[in-house]
Amino acid sequence: MSHTTAAPHRSGEQDVDLTSSGLEHRIAEVSPLLNGNTTGVNGVHPNGLTNDLTNGTNGHTPKSGELDASKLTIELADPNARQVPDEATACSGTETICTDHMITCTWKVSSGWEAPALKPYGPLSLMPTASVLHYATECFEGLKCFRGFDGKLRLFRPNLNANRMLMSTLRISLPGFNPEELEKLIAKLVEVDGPKWLSKSRPGSFLYLRPAMIGTQPQLGVQAPKEALLFITASFMPRMDAPAGGMKLHTSPEDQVRAWVGGFGYAKVGANYGPSLLATNEARARGFGQILWLYGPNGECTEAGASNFFILWRAKETGKLQLVTAPLDDRLILDGVTRRSCVELARERLAGELEVVERKYTIDEVLEADKEGRIVEAFAAGTAFFICPVSLIHHRGVEVQIPMGKTGESGMYTAKIKGWLKDIMYGNEQHPWGPVVTDQ
Amino acid sequence: MSHTTAAPHRSGEQDVDLTSSGLEHRIAEVSPLLNGNTTGVNGVHPNGLTNDLTNGTNGHTPKSGELDASKLTIELADPNARQVPDEATACSGTETICTDHMITCTWKVSSGWEAPALKPYGPLSLMPTASVLHYATECFEGLKCFRGFDGKLRLFRPNLNANRMLMSTLRISLPGFNPEELEKLIAKLVEVDGPKWLSKSRPGSFLYLRPAMIGTQPQLGVQAPKEALLFITASFMPRMDAPAGGMKLHTSPEDQVRAWVGGFGYAKVGANYGPSLLATNEARARGFGQILWLYGPNGECTEAGASNFFILWRAKETGKLQLVTAPLDDRLILDGVTRRSCVELARERLAGELEVVERKYTIDEVLEADKEGRIVEAFAAGTAFFICPVSLIHHRGVEVQIPMGKTGESGMYTAKIKGWLKDIMYGNEQHPWGPVVTDQ
Repeated sequence: MSHTTAAPHRSGEQDVDLTSSGLEHRIAEVSPLLNGNTTGVNGVHPNGLTNDLTNGTNGHTPKSGELDASKLTIELADPNARQVPDEATACSGTETICTDHMITCTWKVSSGWEAPALKPYGPLSLMPTASVLHYATECFEGLKCFRGFDGKLRLFRPNLNANRMLMSTLRISLPGFNPEELEKLIAKLVEVDGPKWLSKSRPGSFLYLRPAMIGTQPQLGVQAPKEALLFITASFMPRMDAPAGGMKLHTSPEDQVRAWVGGFGYAKVGANYGPSLLATNEARARGFGQILWLYGPNGECTEAGASNFFILWRAKETGKLQLVTAPLDDRLILDGVTRRSCVELARERLAGELEVVERKYTIDEVLEADKEGRIVEAFAAGTAFFICPVSLIHHRGVEVQIPMGKTGESGMYTAKIKGWLKDIMYGNEQHPWGPVVTDQ
Repeated sequence: MSHTTAAPHRSGEQDVDLTSSGLEHRIAEVSPLLNGNTTGVNGVHPNGLTNDLTNGTNGHTPKSGELDASKLTIELADPNARQVPDEATACSGTETICTDHMITCTWKVSSGWEAPALKPYGPLSLMPTASVLHYATECFEGLKCFRGFDGKLRLFRPNLNANRMLMSTLRISLPGFNPEELEKLIAKLVEVDGPKWLSKSRPGSFLYLRPAMIGTQPQLGVQAPKEALLFITASFMPRMDAPAGGMKLHTSPEDQVRAWVGGFGYAKVGANYGPSLLATNEARARGFGQILWLYGPNGECTEAGASNFFILWRAKETGKLQLVTAPLDDRLILDGVTRRSCVELARERLAGELEVVERKYTIDEVLEADKEGRIVEAFAAGTAFFICPVSLIHHRGVEVQIPMGKTGESGMYTAKIKGWLKDIMYGNEQHPWGPVVTDQ
């Protein structure tokens, strides 16, 4: 595919926009996998995905070398070899307890994707020269499967995770794939391990699913890996959505920036996480849960740790309730599945009560709203933290206390949104966002 | 160690400077390893290293749990199992050919560093949940050992690599260590594998040494790893210092930034590399060798690919020769060993002929110098690319041709500096930068 035709909306500007067109070239290359045709990438989402990507099956039949869930080989573990621990025990150690199986799939530039394999969970073998260990050629996703109160096992909007995973893989120069095939593989792992590891006796519980892709080519040198491994695990993960007293945030120091315009803050690549640990550890040592990452000379609020951040306040001008969160259009923040779901649910179900606003807003606006008593609630939103009420923001020696509702556990709107999401996840409400995997 | 006392020079400002103090706390914690006392981190180098760190042995005796090269265990491979390939064959594939052995050393937060082990080269076993595979908790170094024309095996300023490795590990929340112990381990690997893999019959050749550290704790969740692995390999690496026609650079697109103030561009962490591949691949597909990374609205020139960049021009005002390279003080670029050596050698040996200037300079200054015929030479400097003449810079449709000397292979000053470095590396000049490891 020629570079001139691959990015027609940039024609004549390719020197100006080398990387953006780079990402779009990669998306154009995999576009047959996305929408069954080769018409390119017009209508590209700010995060690099076509707008119609999330609308169900595309009917594409995998060709040789493409990721193909139907080729999955299955090697089952001895079902009696491991017992399922209780949740508290499973989450108490320094090691993630995974289920009996994992799915792996290898890729080579010369031959494409091999048949994926479901097999007993165990270590990976990587050469010391593997790309991922030196150059952070890695990306991942996080989603959960839920044991419903109706006894069924559900996922939550897995298509969004699969689509985002594709965008992340392309951003970090790993191979593309049809996101629907990834969805099928995720569902298969749940189907095999869910019944035992998330038993019907534990309704209201979840397992954490982690698809990841890494560059495995054993060659030193800064280059796109010619070999890669996709793997998916299912594991216990602690519930982090209700820390005692709410989540306390510490704003990022002036001399550190999590992500920046022209960077990769919107992609779920490893490179966004490791470098953030230094500030996070410092904040934790001082009693805070996460960093509220500020951006730019005006201190725009972007993300809370590895979650999106929402603040509910009364607008300065009108006094009306606004649920505010950072926008996606400058590609600084992650297009969170929970974030998106909050935005959509609040717009649909709270339309008469509050306005949802995706816009840049600064820490000074937060401080001002606090002084004027306009802050109503705040929460972090993400798969790991789910909907986690925020009770305090510490900024340069100033503490912003945020109301936590009558119970002291959560503001009312935070609780409402969280409740709706829970209902969908655990089957109290039948909803297209919560596809059933199995009732076993 | 309390956070208040750990960063006395920041006292009263800790909210403003959480991360900077974070890095300095970590350095303070390991400072007994660095200078034999506990007086803290005053006089911190812009890149986080104490200024006197590079001045030879500190006499610190490792305590239990500290990295200790004297505890090295040795398990030798069958010396006849593998034959040494010729250089061309070794560098022709898609896999790096390593020597017979590697050194590994494991660390746990509870017990510190175990005894390091020299053992046969082979795969690492990592759990799928290992920190490094998801969160890019990884850093590395690159240096070479040289078979001199006098038959001896030398390193080149390995103390600088070891010190920088420490800074990188702390920046990415991996465990500290005494850099001298790392140096000893590097030398040990050369001592064991050098005689066979870099035989006396190949004077003027080198092996590439790659110390790396990764977070191995098998637990999902964004946190500093509680387990880590240090490993060192020695391998073949292609010579990249003389591409036909010189190295051609393409400036970075406006919408992509390699590193940013407040980021981690100065640390040799994986997170600086993976995300840069997209633009680099695009540039390579268009016939360029590397990206010349610009920074900020004025397009300051920072690095050339994963190398530092030097330009030799006649100053606009005075017409005098200036060797210009980007400065270290805003922590955007890597404090390259080759870069530093070029700066120091040119200042020492070319003092009457040219001035060495470390300052911010923009691509517009380069374009202007080109228009006015003031550009004399340019080169990339790094361990992998050594001193690589640059013949062209492409910026937004404009091509800057850079003289390549009478031979068409290299400008005169580029060749001079390269020659001096070679002489030190290969033992034509006895110099403190080129410590001999063994004459076997």
